[in-house]
This record gives sequence, structure tokens and C-alpha cells, in this order.
Amino acid sequence: MTTLIWYGDEAVSHWAVDDRGIAYGDGLFETLRVEAGRGILLAGHLQRLQQGCLQLGIPFLASWPQRIADALASGKTGILRVQVTRGRGGRGYQSPSVITPGFALSWHERPQYPAQYTQWGIRVADAPFALASQPALAGIKHSNRLEQVLLRDALATQPQCQELVVCNQAGEVVEGVFSNLFMIRAGVLLTPPVTQCGVAGVLREALLADAPLPVEVATLTPSDLLAADEVFFANSVMGIWPVATYRERAWPVGEYTRQCQAHIAPWFAPE
Amino acid sequence: MTTLIWYGDEAVSHWAVDDRGIAYGDGLFETLRVEAGRGILLAGHLQRLQQGCLQLGIPFLASWPQRIADALASGKTGILRVQVTRGRGGRGYQSPSVITPGFALSWHERPQYPAQYTQWGIRVADAPFALASQPALAGIKHSNRLEQVLLRDALATQPQCQELVVCNQAGEVVEGVFSNLFMIRAGVLLTPPVTQCGVAGVLREALLADAPLPVEVATLTPSDLLAADEVFFANSVMGIWPVATYRERAWPVGEYTRQCQAHIAPWFAPE
Repeated sequence: MTTLIWYGDEAVSHWAVDDRGIAYGDGLFETLRVEAGRGILLAGHLQRLQQGCLQLGIPFLASWPQRIADALASGKTGILRVQVTRGRGGRGYQSPSVITPGFALSWHERPQYPAQYTQWGIRVADAPFALASQPALAGIKHSNRLEQVLLRDALATQPQCQELVVCNQAGEVVEGVFSNLFMIRAGVLLTPPVTQCGVAGVLREALLADAPLPVEVATLTPSDLLAADEVFFANSVMGIWPVATYRERAWPVGEYTRQCQAHIAPWFAPE
Repeated sequence: MTTLIWYGDEAVSHWAVDDRGIAYGDGLFETLRVEAGRGILLAGHLQRLQQGCLQLGIPFLASWPQRIADALASGKTGILRVQVTRGRGGRGYQSPSVITPGFALSWHERPQYPAQYTQWGIRVADAPFALASQPALAGIKHSNRLEQVLLRDALATQPQCQELVVCNQAGEVVEGVFSNLFMIRAGVLLTPPVTQCGVAGVLREALLADAPLPVEVATLTPSDLLAADEVFFANSVMGIWPVATYRERAWPVGEYTRQCQAHIAPWFAPE
């Protein structure tokens, strides 16, 4: 793995020992699928990163999109991980008066998911705990991810399952551990709001803006999922995974899910 | 600032570029006040760190208490910050199958708070947003601290105030931004539970175990604070700060608060 790190516009070889990313998870990240040098849904990733910086009060540097473009110019295929931090800080929560943000790019192998997940669907179970509601942090891809770490480790104890249905503390469905959740009811594509908790996934946003069927953000419960015509999980690395089984329910892969998969396929293609 | 870092038992000069502390705030920390080489309430800090490791599934290494003892043997006065991370990781939330935790010690200047905060009390205001409830993470001093970063920066915009009253989403009082909250009602010392959110402060635990008056964990609201005989904030770095004003209410420093200050004074003394 190669990692390039900058503080402001200064290239460095390591994170500073007093980086606030380590101390407080005081940062943001993006995980960009790259096909032969093309960043899949790159504009959406940059937009979310910029929104996250705005929300956390971290300067979004004009040089960052260019650094990403430079990395893509290598023509590689894989995953480009982008990490932003608030930079160095003293002890204590307060942001430094002058913030010189940290920025890192690292290349990773694309995860090799079995093709059957996309073709025939996955098995999903219920998460062992609910997400905390925090409107001040909801939607953005910040680096406070202990909930997801604990949930991902819980998923790993159920090797027959590929994702978890994660709810909020009101018992409403929010998302998966590492992807967003969608369901189809009467020809309408529905996905839960991410204004209280959850991540506004880049593929989720793209589908909300451009889907092959009517699409709505809606409050949904596990009962709604069980009564749905079709259910799928989606993110900008793996695409769309239909849900084959959840609790007592089993679904064949439905026609609307297939339409959505076909619809996004050009988005995921190399140029 | 000097920082020493280890992965397992290997001393290193920098955090690894792929440390999960940076990526996910996947770690824990302690802030230890040190007086002439004596770690104030050291046993409580070690106990909380061990509890946090257990809760997050990070190994607590037997060498860590000795490393802290070695640092204290310098005889310094100041703040010793202890940072633990889950160590290096690939991309993705899942914990590595073998965890070699990161561990760092750094010395910092003791913050120079005006003596009047302790003697005559502080002004406090209401926090601009509520803490999220997450029993899976409550109590421990984990490194997912974006809520506290945002709240501390909000406090900095009110220079006449020294702490904020932070509530949960049910409107119950939890703590301050960087300290725990106590009130006295009819001769009983009361502090809110930290089982849904908040940090189980080391001085809070010490007072729960050994206070100069009856002490109880109790659900409290801002109205309860306003009706209290006395209110104070406390942590193991600053000790006890009486609250002088909150909303329309003003208090002289009360006798029970003075008793608590006198009671903990020996805990904060050099050996």
C-alpha cells in the first residue's frame, strides 16, 4: 500500500504524532472505486467531502481535487481512499485557531466479492444494536466510526450473512453496516432518511437524483422491509446487492432491482 | 511535546499511515494529571482504559502500566496523555484478525486555569445540541469525539462561559463538554448516569466511591439544576469548579462543594 500525506500543501511521510485524527477521529474520508483511472461517481464523493468539511469546520483545500486527479492519472484500477483530518492539535478538544488540514491518498485492492452477491442476492440479519441519532453528524462520512467497527465485527461472526439491517433507536431502518438500504413497494424505490444518523452514500444520492423508477426518501421499519416487493443494499464500491433472505422472508431477485443494476452499470464502467 | 509510540512491544517513531485511529477513531485515550511524578487517580485511569479495551475488543497489554510508570519515574509535573488504537488495518471497518494495538504517551503542559474558577465558580450555558445515546460506547473514553470537538468550539464562541450543560436527546442533563456534572440537593450529591452517553470520569467514579456526603446517580434535568442547592463540574485534571451562574440562577459557592473540594485535595497532591 502506498500512502501520500500532506499537511496543507506540504508533502510529508507520516501522520503527525499529534494529529487530531488519531486523538478524536476528527476527520472525514471517502472510498473511491477506480476503473482504469476513472473515479466512479467522483463528483459525488468530492461533494460529500466538501459538505463534511463545511459541517465540521475543516477547510476544504482547492488543491485536493487536483491531487485526486493526479492519482487517477496513473490509470490504475482499485480503491483510492481519501482521508482528511483537522490536522495537528494540542491536547484538548478545541480546534486550533489556525487549521492546517491533513490529507492522505492510499491505494487498495478492490475487494473481491463473489459474483453471486450481485446476481442472486445476499442473506442479511438484524444488527445487534441501533445507531445513535446525532443530526450534527448525520449524513457525512466522518471518521467517528466505532459503531460501524463494532457492527462489522458482529457481522463477521455470522459468515452466512453479507450485510446487516441497522436501525435507529426508534426501531426504524437506517442502512446497512457499509452500504445504504433500498426497497421497492408498488413500483416506487424507497430509502430511509439519513438526517438523524447514517451516511448519505454517494450511490444513494445518485439514485435519488436519477433512478429508472420513481424514488422517495421514506421512514421504513423492518416490517416494511418484510412486506416489500424487493430489497437491496447499495454503495459506490460494490454496486447493488439484492437481498435474498431476511428473517423469515425470501425474495427472488426482482425486476426493478435488475433495472436499477442495469441503470447504474454505465456509471461503474471505465471510460 | 515528546511522544513515544509502540505497536505491541515495538517502539516506533510515528503512527503507521494505515492506523485505524486515523481512519475510524478506533481507539481510546486517558488524560492523566501528574504532580512531581505522581499520576493523580492513576488506578482509575488504568481501570477505565482496561474497561474501554474490553468493550471495544482491543487487547490491553500488560506492558502498558509499566510504560506509564516509566514515564512517571521522570518526576515531571504536567499532563501525560495516553492514546491507544486498534493498530494498523486494511481498508474497511472489520478488525484485523490479529490486533497489534498502538500505544502512545505524550507530555503536555498543565492547562493554566484562573484560580477563581475553583474559588468563586464559573459561568455555564446550555450546549447547542444534545449528545447521541449509544449504550455500546457510553462511559468509556473512546476516540470518537466529534461531538465534544463541536461542543468545545461552540463554547469557545462564548468566552464569558467556562463550561456547557450538555443534555441527551431526552432533555436530561449528562455532563459538561470536558468534565462531569454534579449537584447537591438536600445534602445529597447527585450526578447523572453515563450508561446511554457521556464519559465515566475518573474523578466522578472516585467521588461515587468516596464522597464526604451521601452520593447517588440520578436522572436530572436542567430544571433540577436550577432548583439545586449547589452545582459543580469536575474532572481529574481541573478538580472541582463550582457553578456560579446558569441561566437566570446564581449561586454562591456552597458548603458541600467546599467539602468536596477539601475532600479531593489530598488526591491531587504530590506524594
